[in-house]
Amino acid sequence: MTTTTATTATTAARPTLDEVAGAARAAFATTVASTAAERSAWLTAVADALDAAADELIPLAHEESHLGTARLTGELARTTAQLRLFASAVVEGSYLEATVDHPDPSTTPPRPDLRRMLRPLGPVAVFSASNFPFAFSVAGGDTASALAAGCPVIVKGHSAHPRLSRRTAEIVAGALATAGAPDGVFGHVEGRETGVALVRHPEVRAVGFTGSLHGGRVLFDLASSRPDPIPFYGELSAVNPVLITAAAVDARADELASGLAGSFTLGAGQFCTNPGVVFVPAGSGFAERVAAAVGQSAPVPMLTDGIAAAFADGLAGLAAHDGVDVVAGATAQQPGTGSAVVLSTTTGTVLADPGALLAECFGPSTLVVEYDDVDDALAAIRSVGGSLTATVHAEPGEELGDILAVLTELAGRVLFAGWPTGVAVSWAQQHGGPWPSTTSIHTSVGVTAIRRFLRPVAYQDAPDAALPAELRESNPLGIPRRVDGVLVVPGSPAD
Amino acid sequence: MTTTTATTATTAARPTLDEVAGAARAAFATTVASTAAERSAWLTAVADALDAAADELIPLAHEESHLGTARLTGELARTTAQLRLFASAVVEGSYLEATVDHPDPSTTPPRPDLRRMLRPLGPVAVFSASNFPFAFSVAGGDTASALAAGCPVIVKGHSAHPRLSRRTAEIVAGALATAGAPDGVFGHVEGRETGVALVRHPEVRAVGFTGSLHGGRVLFDLASSRPDPIPFYGELSAVNPVLITAAAVDARADELASGLAGSFTLGAGQFCTNPGVVFVPAGSGFAERVAAAVGQSAPVPMLTDGIAAAFADGLAGLAAHDGVDVVAGATAQQPGTGSAVVLSTTTGTVLADPGALLAECFGPSTLVVEYDDVDDALAAIRSVGGSLTATVHAEPGEELGDILAVLTELAGRVLFAGWPTGVAVSWAQQHGGPWPSTTSIHTSVGVTAIRRFLRPVAYQDAPDAALPAELRESNPLGIPRRVDGVLVVPGSPAD
Repeated sequence: MTTTTATTATTAARPTLDEVAGAARAAFATTVASTAAERSAWLTAVADALDAAADELIPLAHEESHLGTARLTGELARTTAQLRLFASAVVEGSYLEATVDHPDPSTTPPRPDLRRMLRPLGPVAVFSASNFPFAFSVAGGDTASALAAGCPVIVKGHSAHPRLSRRTAEIVAGALATAGAPDGVFGHVEGRETGVALVRHPEVRAVGFTGSLHGGRVLFDLASSRPDPIPFYGELSAVNPVLITAAAVDARADELASGLAGSFTLGAGQFCTNPGVVFVPAGSGFAERVAAAVGQSAPVPMLTDGIAAAFADGLAGLAAHDGVDVVAGATAQQPGTGSAVVLSTTTGTVLADPGALLAECFGPSTLVVEYDDVDDALAAIRSVGGSLTATVHAEPGEELGDILAVLTELAGRVLFAGWPTGVAVSWAQQHGGPWPSTTSIHTSVGVTAIRRFLRPVAYQDAPDAALPAELRESNPLGIPRRVDGVLVVPGSPAD
Repeated sequence: MTTTTATTATTAARPTLDEVAGAARAAFATTVASTAAERSAWLTAVADALDAAADELIPLAHEESHLGTARLTGELARTTAQLRLFASAVVEGSYLEATVDHPDPSTTPPRPDLRRMLRPLGPVAVFSASNFPFAFSVAGGDTASALAAGCPVIVKGHSAHPRLSRRTAEIVAGALATAGAPDGVFGHVEGRETGVALVRHPEVRAVGFTGSLHGGRVLFDLASSRPDPIPFYGELSAVNPVLITAAAVDARADELASGLAGSFTLGAGQFCTNPGVVFVPAGSGFAERVAAAVGQSAPVPMLTDGIAAAFADGLAGLAAHDGVDVVAGATAQQPGTGSAVVLSTTTGTVLADPGALLAECFGPSTLVVEYDDVDDALAAIRSVGGSLTATVHAEPGEELGDILAVLTELAGRVLFAGWPTGVAVSWAQQHGGPWPSTTSIHTSVGVTAIRRFLRPVAYQDAPDAALPAELRESNPLGIPRRVDGVLVVPGSPAD
C-alpha cells in the first residue's frame, strides 16, 4: 500500500503507523541516492500543485482556522515560495558542505584522501502547528527541509485543521508521485497517540515540531529517552520582548503605538513571534497610546476553542496580579474568540514574579512594562526566557550600550525596526532561539533549516567512481566546495 | 579568584564548581564580543605553550597512560596542530556562515534587511577521555572547538591521568592569560560527582564528551532532562566493521592481515576507531593469517586496571559463546594489561545474537566473521549499531553493489583503503556516526566541530554600526559570505 493511496483512503482503510513508517524506510533507499535535480523537481512539483489548488485550499483553510482569506492567500504563497527557494538551494548545492582534502603525508597524523559531505538522516516525523495551516503544516518548512535533504516525511497533522491537512496531503503525495518520487516518501497520520508512537518509532530518525511548550517538551523527552535518541527540533514558545528607548518614544510614540497594535493583534495574536512584552520609559503614557491605537476591537474567532480558553485564562491570571492594569479591552473573553487586550505594569512587578508575568499568553494581548532607566529595563529583560525574537526601537545614532548584547543572548532574531510578526523566508532568516523558544540550536525557517536532517559522512581513499557526484574530483555538478581548505565557487572567475 | 590560579592551587584551595562556572559566565561577556584575531591568538598561544612543554608533558603522560613516548609525541603534535588549524579557520571566517539578505519588497512576505551569522552559545563543559591524554583531553578537540567559537571552557579532567590534566590545565590557563584572554575563560574540575553537577549547572550551555557508552548515556540523559535542555555532543562507542571482499583476500591476504593486526593492536587497542569486527569470505583462512601476523604478543599495560578488567571480561564473554573460536592469544589476561586476541566466528552466529557478539570490546582484540556471500555479510553488518567508521577492502574496479550504501548508513567515515585507527585532523574529517557511536549529528574532530558550540542569530534592519564586523556591508574582515543567495569569497577574482 502506498502512502499516496493511504491519504485518500477512508479511516477504515488507513494504513497503520507501522505501514507508513515501513513505506518511508523503503522510500529512503531511493531518496538517499536521489540526485539534487530530482529533489529539486519534487519540491517544485509540490509547490506547483499547491498553487494550482489554491482556490480549493484557501476556503477550506479559512473554514477550519478562521484566519481569513487574505492572510491565508499570503501564507500559501509564502509556503510555495519556500518550497521553490529550497528547490533552488538544493541545486546550488552548498548546503551539503562538500569538502575535499587531498592526501598530505606531511601532517600529523598523515592525511589520507578525505571527502566529506552531508547525507540524509532517514525518515523524518513532522508535527504541524495549528496557527499556520499552510506554512508550518503538512507542506510547511519542516516538510520542505526534509524532502530537500533527501529524507522521507511522515506528517502528524494538526487536529485544528484535519480536512485541510488530509486534502493537502493528497495533493502533496500526488505531486510527488507524478514527479517520480518513490512510494512512501510522504505519509500523513493523525491523532495524539499516533504522534507519540511516531516519535518512538524505530524507523524515525529525526523530528520537526512546532507547537506548545508543554506538548513539545513531552515529545522532546520521548525522543531523548529512546533506546537510540534522535534529534528533536522543536519550536515551542516565545514572549518576544521589545525595548523602546526614551528617545524613540519622544520622537515617534504614535507610530510605534500603532505599529505595536497592528503586530500584536495580527491573526488574533496567534503568532509565535507575537510581541508579548514591551518595555517603555515610565511616565511616557505609551500604554494608553497603544490602547488608543487598538480602539474598540471586535472579538475574532480563534483557531480552536481550547486556544481561546487558554488565552482567557492567561489574561485572567495576569490581570489578577497586583500591579498589573488592564488599559484596553477586557480580560473576560467570549468563548471561542479573542479580542485585543493591553495590560501594563512596571519592571519591579515583573522582577518580583517573572515566571507569572513573562509566560507566553498566546493571543491578541501585550504587556507594556514601564522602566526607570535602560539598566532597569535590561534587568527585567534578562528574566525573559529564550525567545524567537527581541526588538529594540531606538533613534538613529543613539548609543545602545548593553542593549544589543542582552537581546542577542536572549533571541535568535534581533530587530532594530518594525515588529517581529511576519517571518520572511530567505537564506539569512533565523527562526529559533534559546530554550524555551526552541529545543535546538538550529532554525526552522530559511534555507539552513535543511541542515537539521543531514549528517556528515567522510569518505576516505575512495575510488572516484564510488563517490557521490558532489565529491568526485571533477566536481561534475559544479557546486561550491572547500578544497584543501580553500572555498571554491565554480562559475566565479576564481575557479 | 581566577581559574588560572585555581588550577595551580592545592586541593584545599580549589574553587568550587559554582566559582568556576561563575568565572566562565563572566568571561563569556568578553569572549562573545572577542574578535576572530583575538580567538586565533588564544588558540595559537595554547599550542605554542604545549609544544614548549613537550619535554615535561610527554613523560608525565606516559607515566599515567603507559602509551609510550613515540605515540604520545605524535599525539601532542596532533593536538597542537589542531589548535593551529582552528586558529586559521577562525580567521578564514566561513565557519560563521555569514549571510546577508538585502531588503526585497517583492517577496512573500516582504523581506527586510536580514543578516545572519553563528554566535557562541556560552560556557561549554568538556569531558576528557582516558585514551587520548592530549588529543581528547584538557586541550583537545572539544576545548579547541569551544575556544574557537568564543565559548569559555570548563574541562572535567579524566581520573586516568590527573597529574597530566592538572599540569596541562595550568599551561593552558597561563597561555590564555598571557595572550590576553579573560579570567575564567578556562577552568578545570575533577571528580565524578562534580562532572554530574557540571552537566546540570545552569551556566553551562553545551557539553562535549568522549568516553564510554554507559557514562555518556547517563550524562546525555542529564543534559536532556534539565529544566532547560542543552546540547550534549557525546562520542561513545563503536565497533567499526570491516568488510573484505573475496577478490581482495585472493589478491593480498597477507597485506590485509598484517594491516589489520597493526591496527587492532595499536595503543593496546584502546582506540574508539579500533576495527572490532572483520567480515571475510568463509574458508579464506584469513583469521589464521591475522593470528600469524600478530604472533606472540606480549602483555601491554592498559590505561587503567578497570579498562583491562573490562577487556578481559568482554573477551571471556565472547569466547564462551557457542560458535566463537579463539585463534590467537588467550582470553585470560594478566591484571592491568592487554595482549592481542583474535577470535573467529560466522555470520550465522553473529545474526543469532548480535547484541552479545557486536558489543564494543575495548582493547587489543578483533572478531573475524566468515561470510558465505556479500549479501550474507551485509545482513550481519546491518546488525552492527551505528559506528564511527566502516571499511571496505575491495579490488580496483570491483562492483560494490549495496556495500557502499550499507556502510554509509552505518557510519560517519567510510574507508576504502587502510584502517580506521589514526584520525587525521582536517577540514574534511568526520568523527561521529549514528547512535550509539555518537549522541549527535556533528563531528568531534576537524574544523566543523566548531559548529557545535554556535547558534545562529539574524539581525533585522540593523544599523551598520550596530552589527558585528562580520556582517557589516563593507565586509571589513573579508570573510566568505552569502549575499542575496550568492556565495562570495573575497580575494577571489570574482569578488
